[in-house]
Amino acid sequence: MQARLLAHLRDDGPLSRVQLADRMNVSRTTIAAEVNRLGELGLAHEVGPAASRGGRRSTMVDLAPGIRFVGISIGATGMSVGVTDGRLAVLATRTRECDIRQGPEAVLATALELARETLEECGVERPMGAGVGVPGPVDFHRGVSVSPPIMPGWDGYPVRDAVSRGLGCPVVLDNDVNVLAIGEQHAGVARAARDFLYVKIGTGIGCGIVVDGELYRGVDGCAGDIGHIRVQDFGPTCACGNTGCLEAFSGGAALARDATEAARAGRSPVLAELLAEKGELTAADIGIAVSRGDAQAVQLIRDSGHRVGQVLASLVSFFNPGLIVIGGRVTGLGHALLAEIRGVTYRRSLPLATGNLPIVLSELGDEGGVIGAARLISSSVYAPLGSGAS
Amino acid sequence: MQARLLAHLRDDGPLSRVQLADRMNVSRTTIAAEVNRLGELGLAHEVGPAASRGGRRSTMVDLAPGIRFVGISIGATGMSVGVTDGRLAVLATRTRECDIRQGPEAVLATALELARETLEECGVERPMGAGVGVPGPVDFHRGVSVSPPIMPGWDGYPVRDAVSRGLGCPVVLDNDVNVLAIGEQHAGVARAARDFLYVKIGTGIGCGIVVDGELYRGVDGCAGDIGHIRVQDFGPTCACGNTGCLEAFSGGAALARDATEAARAGRSPVLAELLAEKGELTAADIGIAVSRGDAQAVQLIRDSGHRVGQVLASLVSFFNPGLIVIGGRVTGLGHALLAEIRGVTYRRSLPLATGNLPIVLSELGDEGGVIGAARLISSSVYAPLGSGAS
Repeated sequence: MQARLLAHLRDDGPLSRVQLADRMNVSRTTIAAEVNRLGELGLAHEVGPAASRGGRRSTMVDLAPGIRFVGISIGATGMSVGVTDGRLAVLATRTRECDIRQGPEAVLATALELARETLEECGVERPMGAGVGVPGPVDFHRGVSVSPPIMPGWDGYPVRDAVSRGLGCPVVLDNDVNVLAIGEQHAGVARAARDFLYVKIGTGIGCGIVVDGELYRGVDGCAGDIGHIRVQDFGPTCACGNTGCLEAFSGGAALARDATEAARAGRSPVLAELLAEKGELTAADIGIAVSRGDAQAVQLIRDSGHRVGQVLASLVSFFNPGLIVIGGRVTGLGHALLAEIRGVTYRRSLPLATGNLPIVLSELGDEGGVIGAARLISSSVYAPLGSGAS
Repeated sequence: MQARLLAHLRDDGPLSRVQLADRMNVSRTTIAAEVNRLGELGLAHEVGPAASRGGRRSTMVDLAPGIRFVGISIGATGMSVGVTDGRLAVLATRTRECDIRQGPEAVLATALELARETLEECGVERPMGAGVGVPGPVDFHRGVSVSPPIMPGWDGYPVRDAVSRGLGCPVVLDNDVNVLAIGEQHAGVARAARDFLYVKIGTGIGCGIVVDGELYRGVDGCAGDIGHIRVQDFGPTCACGNTGCLEAFSGGAALARDATEAARAGRSPVLAELLAEKGELTAADIGIAVSRGDAQAVQLIRDSGHRVGQVLASLVSFFNPGLIVIGGRVTGLGHALLAEIRGVTYRRSLPLATGNLPIVLSELGDEGGVIGAARLISSSVYAPLGSGAS
C-alpha cells in the first residue's frame, strides 16, 4: 500500500485522493487514512482542493516537499552526481572526470565530495537516501562490487556501506547500466516501455534488461554483460583476458585503440593530425574526423556498429524486446553509428520481432544515471520498513 | 485469492486449512469460506482431518477429484496428447507421428481424435480445459499461429477456437517450447528454478524463457526464437529463407542432411550402411552410428553441439540464468552432445555467470509437453471468471 501509493505520486503526482483510490482500487477513506499516516512520516502531504469535477471536491496529494535523494552514477572515466526531489526532478548536478582504476577509496572520496557540494548547493543537511551505479557487476543484495574486469581493487569492496557512512543515509548499489536503464524508463524515451533493452556503449559495453517494467538482474546479478559475448574466435585481447569479446572490438577503448593505429599507420591524415595535436586519441576524436570527411573514421564507426548489430540481432531473436535504447559516450558519434547498428539488427532478425522495434539513441545524457540511481533508492525508501522491498 | 489457493493445491496439495492460511497470509476463517465456495464450483473439497499437531485438528483440502485437463503437444514430426487430473498427474497419454506440413486441418483432426480416445479411456465426458503447444510462433492472446517458418498453411489459423469447438471446453494455445519449459518447471528438473532456459533441439531449435517463475513471451510473443540466430555469415539455407541460422547447422533436420551427405560421400561406412538399409537417415541414426564407433558421426554431433554452445554462451552472458535444460528429440544423441554444449558454453562465458550454472538434459520426454500444456490451461481455469488471468 505505502510503496504503491508513493510510487504513484513519484511517477505521476500530484494526484487527487479520488485518483489514488481509483488507481489502487481501494476506498477514499482508506486513502485518506494512509495519506495522514504518510504525512506523519514526512513522506506525503495534502496540497489543497483538486479542480472541481461537479460534485464534492477531492483533495490533492503530493510527496512531501522536503524529500531529497542523491544519485551517483560512476562510469569508467567520469561520474555524475545529483540531488533530486521526491519525484526525482533533478535540482542540481555535478560531473567530474575520474579513472575507475584508481580504486574504490579515491573514486568514492571524489563521489562523496561532489555529493556534499551538491547537497550544500541545495541547502540539504541530510538526504533520505542515495543510489549508486558502478561500471561493473554488483552483488545487489550485499551492496558490493564483484570481480569487475575493468575495476582493479573493487572486487568485494563494500561500496554501499562506505557511501552510507559518508552521507549518513541508506544506500542502494547497482550496475551503472541498470541505473541508466531505469533512468531512461523514468524520464527518457523508455517511459512507455514495459520490456526493453538499454545498451550502453562507453569505454566498455553493457546492457540493462527491463522485463514487465522491472529490472532483470539474473541469478548472480550479472545479466546484461554483453560486452564479453564473443563475436569472433580470435581478435584483440579484452580487458577480461579473453579474446574476441564484443567490447574489445566496439567499446570506446577499442575505438580509441583502432583510431590510434590508423593514425600511426598513415591510413587517416585527419586522425594523424589529431594525434599529433593531442598526444592521444579517444573515441570522440573519431567523431571529429568523421565531421572533417575522413573515410577511415567512417569505416571505424561502421565496423563497430556492425559488431554491435550482430549481437543485438541475436538478443532480439531471443528476447523480443519492444524497444532498444542506445546510450553511453560513444553515441556522441551519432547517427552513422546508429544507422549501422539498425541496419544489421533489422536485417538479421526475423520480421516478426523487428516489425515494431524502435532502436533509438538515449536523450538523457549524464542526467539519466543520476535519475536512475535516485529512483532505485526512492523505491527502497518508499517501501515500508521491514517489507524487504527494493 | 481463488487462483492462488488453487495453484497451491495444484503444485503442493493436498494442504490443511492451516497450511493454506499460512501460505496465503489470510485467516483460517477466510480459507474455510473460500474452500466452501470453491466446493460449490466443483473445484476443491475437504478430504478429512489433518494429522494432529497437538491442538485442534485442521482439515485437509484438495482439488476436486473430478477435474480433468487435456494437454496436446504438437511437434514438427510427432504429437503427444494426454489427460491429467487437477494436480496435473498424467492419467493416460497417446503419441503419434505426424507431419506439421500437412496443415492445420489434418494435424488438428489427428490431435482431436487422440484426445477423444484418451478421454474415453479415462471415462471423461468433458474436460475442464485443454492446453495446446505448436512448433512455431503464436499470438498468445488471439490463440492463433503467426508466420511459422516450418508450418506452411498455419499462418493466422485459429487453432485455439478449432480445438475449443472440437472438445467443448476452453483452450489456451502456446508455442511448443514454452509448453515444454513450463512442464519442466512443474514436474521436471526445473522444479526449484525461478530463472531458467529450456532449449529444445528437435527438427528445429527454440528456447523457453522463465523469469521469476513465469514464462516470458516477449512483446510480440516470439521471444526464444534462437533457431534463427545467425551463427555464421554464410552457410546452408534455413527453412526461414535466410542463411547461417543456428537451426540450419544444428537442428535435427540439419543433422539428418549432414549425415546423408557423409554417407553418400563415403566418409562414413556405418551411415552409408544405415542409409542403404532405411532409404533415408534421421538424426537418431547418427546416435546409432556413434554407438557403432563411427568417427564421422561423433564429429557431426560435436559440430552441432559446438554451434549450440556458441549461442548459449551469448545467452548466458546476457540472461545469467540459474539453469539450462536441454530437451527435444536430438537429446537422444545423449552425452556426447551435452558434453560439447557444456564445454563451449562454460569456456565462452564469464566465470561469474557459469560458476553455479547446471546444464542438464530434460528427463520428462514426451510427457513434459502434456504436463506443460495442461498446466497452462489449469492456470486459466483456476483464475476466477472475468479476472483476465492466464
